[in-house]
Amino acid sequence: MPPYRLHYFPESGNSYKLALMLTLCGQEFELVWTDFGGGVTRTAKWREAVNEMGEIPVLEDGGHRLTQTAPILLRLAERFGKFGGTDEAERFEVLRWLFWDNHKLTGYMATYRFQRAFTPSPDPQVLAFLRKRLDDFLGILEAHLRDREFMVGNQATIADLSMIGYLLFPKEESGYDFARTHPAVSKWLARVAALPGWRAPYDLLPGKRLRRFI
Amino acid sequence: MPPYRLHYFPESGNSYKLALMLTLCGQEFELVWTDFGGGVTRTAKWREAVNEMGEIPVLEDGGHRLTQTAPILLRLAERFGKFGGTDEAERFEVLRWLFWDNHKLTGYMATYRFQRAFTPSPDPQVLAFLRKRLDDFLGILEAHLRDREFMVGNQATIADLSMIGYLLFPKEESGYDFARTHPAVSKWLARVAALPGWRAPYDLLPGKRLRRFI
Repeated sequence: MPPYRLHYFPESGNSYKLALMLTLCGQEFELVWTDFGGGVTRTAKWREAVNEMGEIPVLEDGGHRLTQTAPILLRLAERFGKFGGTDEAERFEVLRWLFWDNHKLTGYMATYRFQRAFTPSPDPQVLAFLRKRLDDFLGILEAHLRDREFMVGNQATIADLSMIGYLLFPKEESGYDFARTHPAVSKWLARVAALPGWRAPYDLLPGKRLRRFI
Repeated sequence: MPPYRLHYFPESGNSYKLALMLTLCGQEFELVWTDFGGGVTRTAKWREAVNEMGEIPVLEDGGHRLTQTAPILLRLAERFGKFGGTDEAERFEVLRWLFWDNHKLTGYMATYRFQRAFTPSPDPQVLAFLRKRLDDFLGILEAHLRDREFMVGNQATIADLSMIGYLLFPKEESGYDFARTHPAVSKWLARVAALPGWRAPYDLLPGKRLRRFI
């Protein structure tokens, strides 16, 4: 039996971050498809028994049920001595970008994409508000990557694995064509996709999909 | 000269988190008021010289300019051996709530409050969207605090200091009267406010204020 079980749904970029991290660290894991679209993670039962935050993914790790993607990435990086940064200064930078990602990049992209592609009749005003903020955040990312290969230091870290989490889905879902609008981001995404063992989101996380409204 | 300099503006809950942490750790710091309302933190000069993320606060710490509130809280907790949690399990919980706070609670409350109170004609649809999500997050917080004194373990940690950051401003700004709607949250806020040395946001961070539109 694989040592890890990942409760996920295919459209979840946070699930993808963990699946990709485990894959790139050469770990096997069992996938447990979860009926997010059917509202399972929002039931009182799920909140009480699995995750009070009502979120996916959940990683079962040696009998423990872990939640919150970024702390899990930090734990795995420490365990495998991979993707954690090479010294204290890099580790601080990794942490900074992980928080920025959760607050800003993933925070807004996950919500924007979900509203845009997987919600029947999203509010155009809300979409415009989210997109305007995302444009700002993607501008910061583009500037940072203009003269860098990866987010921190000279090699990939969990900052990269976290920040690409919602950017590698099809542009039909995100509404962003980075190759056209954000060349440095686009090249960086290709660099991450060239890491040995890399796999695309819907390839790594198969199973029944949410209905798309776009 | 105090060892720390904090670049802040009075309405910034993230600045308050750092000012409160330093205060509760018995540290002196110099306050540097920053013209956030005038757009200083969004200029190319600020982004290049101070913080590429274009954000406040910035903490000068022995010649280093540190940004991103949560990683700074983690560093200070380690340095002073205070508010960091008592063992590995607690430290993981602290990290989980710090990320949840940045993504969800602070993430939405900071934006909602800014749009609601400090923006000239905010979009009612956008306000309604943000408030609906905030209601969900505050419900999670209320449930967590129903049978607990503090977020993690039996004493205050930086998870508390982070999560109260935007909740202790006047209800005229946030639009939430927790004593009425979230009794467990309200009692927890009072518990944090009873920590020795505690001071309220606008008391700890004086100076010229933003124009309020509400």
